[in-house]
Amino acid sequence: DQPFVLIAGPCQIESAAHAQETAQALREICGALGLGLIYKSSYDKANRTSVSAQRGIGMNEGLQILSDIRETLQIPVLTDVHTAEQCAPAAQAVDVLQIPAFLCRQTDLLLAAGQTGAVVNVKKGQFLAPWDMQHVAHKIASTGNKRIMLCERGTSFGYNTLVNDMRGLPIMAQTGYPVVFDATHSVQQPGGQGTSSGGQREFAPILARAALATGVASLFIEVHQDPDRAPSDGPNMLPISALPRLFEQFRQLDSLVKQFI
Amino acid sequence: DQPFVLIAGPCQIESAAHAQETAQALREICGALGLGLIYKSSYDKANRTSVSAQRGIGMNEGLQILSDIRETLQIPVLTDVHTAEQCAPAAQAVDVLQIPAFLCRQTDLLLAAGQTGAVVNVKKGQFLAPWDMQHVAHKIASTGNKRIMLCERGTSFGYNTLVNDMRGLPIMAQTGYPVVFDATHSVQQPGGQGTSSGGQREFAPILARAALATGVASLFIEVHQDPDRAPSDGPNMLPISALPRLFEQFRQLDSLVKQFI
Amino acid sequence: DQPFVLIAGPCQIESAAHAQETAQALREICGALGLGLIYKSSYDKANRTSVSAQRGIGMNEGLQILSDIRETLQIPVLTDVHTAEQCAPAAQAVDVLQIPAFLCRQTDLLLAAGQTGAVVNVKKGQFLAPWDMQHVAHKIASTGNKRIMLCERGTSFGYNTLVNDMRGLPIMAQTGYPVVFDATHSVQQPGGQGTSSGGQREFAPILARAALATGVASLFIEVHQDPDRAPSDGPNMLPISALPRLFEQFRQLDSLVKQFI
Amino acid sequence: DQPFVLIAGPCQIESAAHAQETAQALREICGALGLGLIYKSSYDKANRTSVSAQRGIGMNEGLQILSDIRETLQIPVLTDVHTAEQCAPAAQAVDVLQIPAFLCRQTDLLLAAGQTGAVVNVKKGQFLAPWDMQHVAHKIASTGNKRIMLCERGTSFGYNTLVNDMRGLPIMAQTGYPVVFDATHSVQQPGGQGTSSGGQREFAPILARAALATGVASLFIEVHQDPDRAPSDGPNMLPISALPRLFEQFRQLDSLVKQFI
Repeated sequence: DQPFVLIAGPCQIESAAHAQETAQALREICGALGLGLIYKSSYDKANRTSVSAQRGIGMNEGLQILSDIRETLQIPVLTDVHTAEQCAPAAQAVDVLQIPAFLCRQTDLLLAAGQTGAVVNVKKGQFLAPWDMQHVAHKIASTGNKRIMLCERGTSFGYNTLVNDMRGLPIMAQTGYPVVFDATHSVQQPGGQGTSSGGQREFAPILARAALATGVASLFIEVHQDPDRAPSDGPNMLPISALPRLFEQFRQLDSLVKQFI
Repeated sequence: DQPFVLIAGPCQIESAAHAQETAQALREICGALGLGLIYKSSYDKANRTSVSAQRGIGMNEGLQILSDIRETLQIPVLTDVHTAEQCAPAAQAVDVLQIPAFLCRQTDLLLAAGQTGAVVNVKKGQFLAPWDMQHVAHKIASTGNKRIMLCERGTSFGYNTLVNDMRGLPIMAQTGYPVVFDATHSVQQPGGQGTSSGGQREFAPILARAALATGVASLFIEVHQDPDRAPSDGPNMLPISALPRLFEQFRQLDSLVKQFI
Repeated sequence: DQPFVLIAGPCQIESAAHAQETAQALREICGALGLGLIYKSSYDKANRTSVSAQRGIGMNEGLQILSDIRETLQIPVLTDVHTAEQCAPAAQAVDVLQIPAFLCRQTDLLLAAGQTGAVVNVKKGQFLAPWDMQHVAHKIASTGNKRIMLCERGTSFGYNTLVNDMRGLPIMAQTGYPVVFDATHSVQQPGGQGTSSGGQREFAPILARAALATGVASLFIEVHQDPDRAPSDGPNMLPISALPRLFEQFRQLDSLVKQFI
Repeated sequence: DQPFVLIAGPCQIESAAHAQETAQALREICGALGLGLIYKSSYDKANRTSVSAQRGIGMNEGLQILSDIRETLQIPVLTDVHTAEQCAPAAQAVDVLQIPAFLCRQTDLLLAAGQTGAVVNVKKGQFLAPWDMQHVAHKIASTGNKRIMLCERGTSFGYNTLVNDMRGLPIMAQTGYPVVFDATHSVQQPGGQGTSSGGQREFAPILARAALATGVASLFIEVHQDPDRAPSDGPNMLPISALPRLFEQFRQLDSLVKQFI
């Protein structure tokens, strides 16, 4: 089995400079450890809790920034799309189109993403059983595009709480598609701060280790220089300064576990 | 307090003739009982389990059929919208725009629906706590349109199962907006039949009675002449032949409960 | 169908005088409304959150108090038992033995309760599906005693939260045994106050109405003159002063619904 | 941090010969890998789904068999107790008393177990949040006995399903007591086979790896020579023939992870 690949970056594209700086820092850390990296960031937060929360930098500017990072740093980049119309332009700028969890059943969006030929990473809806992701994958694959990744980011568990069923990772892997574990959204507390979502950053590395121990293809982690000042998802993002030590642990763990499988 | 209003109709618009026939049957039943009726039907099933499931008649033809029913039968009509772009044309043809549960956090869709000035009925996401619907309502209300309805249709409970927390009905009513109880989607078993959703039609009237006993403003029920042959949601739709007796029970129950409040 | 029977009383037996006073108040209220009453109270709280919480008056004294109430007020009485050994002496003093939810799978306790010949009211475990209560009933019935009642008091829903699945009431009724709805424990928030359980008293009447609308045989409600000063379950008990108006509503609702069934 | 200790054995004590044979096999496997072993087996299955399911060999005979294993094989032994009265005699025969999950809130049982001075392993109730186990531990510790272990075996998740929240392991560890992960009961499907519980044996090693990756003190695994013919818990027990390879993986994983902590 292949070593795990990191999908990492800040929740939002804050500015060209901030994006470049974060991408460079991540490339350096991953390079030193021999880890593959896909840079992740969003140009629009389309489903925030509150209407007055910050939406993001916008599609045109955001895609330009991601495309620049891809070119200057020579790393693949990922962003999420929210409508069928966004898929084609986004696929020009990035390598991986991501389908948000709430939208993972929207047939038109899945088909449009598939039709671009780009890799499509679908987050499992919080309302979906892991075995039902095969139908989601099948929608994309019906376009002829089988470059699909399936991503666990937590399942509804009572109110304002998510839980990861680690059995879901091997169940989704039975589709034959690579499985991603999203460690930082899994510790979100949706709506847990009243007008925004809370998070339990301290559990993200623990859940990441648990997921790696089951043998996943990729780890998704949102990171920030200063999470407590980030415009969104601050409570669950990890500080960049913590990454070298963590990623080294993850690398060793992944390498050991992949020997078992 | 006002008597409850019925939102009823077949899941899909199957044809102009079928839609007219169903609407007439419902108007007759509700008229005989003195119940308010909003006719409901969908022109597109945008998030079906399987890519090969029947999508629907399409927006243009569907809206024409609904608009004809509104005119010829003089009853308000409701349909669901799936993108911001669909809101304006849909609002020309129908009285109530419905936001599907999976999409209840998509800010652009909520704003576009609100901006039409039409009544907006939002289904509570299966992943959302009832108190978090206030933020959803607030997004719509930020457009100046306060003609909002909030609809319970079940909350994720383990895998492939929904549960109705009846406390959620008075909690959502604290927003001041009318609360709708969707009795037939609440008995869906999402993904419960492998490549499509199952349902427990036999519990829909029981849950409807329970919801009415808490004092809701409206009841949402999908109905069909022959549910077992319907192109979607058959397992949970109620046969039209059962409605006169059920609606008479609901009317009496509602009338008694509204005296208590 | 028969009118519903009330099972009511304070969580704990606080003293002979307090028990008599509460039982008399309830008998008066129920008598005025023509409602059947079973007086409920506990001599031991055997599974409190904290070791330092008040346990209760003890079995010998408690059973004497209940037996006195039965004799002087001529009403049936109910108490809960926690070990097989307690069943025989308890059955001498009371008419109904209650099996606590956590203990609803303990075979020896169920058999010992059944063997007394007393009516046995089993609370559905928070961890149990409604259809699994048939096996619990079957254990009791294997003693030859079929005087069984099955009681819904909430199902685990995430952490520190219970939810009532109203479908569970007709499902349990399929056993042929009368179904009880426990309105005040259903609004408990287990562990919700750190070292004790919280509760949402305001939702108990709403859930009681919802359950009655499905057609239950009995309603279980814990009551107190002054719930906020009660030694246990204060946050979810209803004040006695609120009962006449509520019970009158329940009576009307039950009477209407029983006509439908 | 110390290497993890194995708690392993067949669900039921089937006979003296079967118990000895299993214990010897486990001692050999663990000895070869340098793993600590506590032998586990039950003399009574006190809460089976069905009244006609096999209960077990009984306390007197069962304790004798366990005590013989302890003496002849020189390994610590564990069994579960179901009433306060069983604690003292059981503590004479075994090193660790185990409190079943359904009984984890029964104050008298916890106190009686604590008072023996034996180590007490408490299974977290399927209905309990991990942070609420501190109150359970505190009940035992109030006897002066702080030799306590807290064990995760799954949390209720919808009907007939358990889920492991891996965050619960470090949360319970905050009490300062060693945390055990029960890999085979976690894959139980309670009531999942109608009159008995189902299980998903194939996921037990995966969940065990995930739990070890978070850094637990102990792993609890039920094993059998021929699980499909075992009198109880067959669907989730692991075959002994699979253990050498699995335990070697677990040892390596644990050793790596303990370096991180």
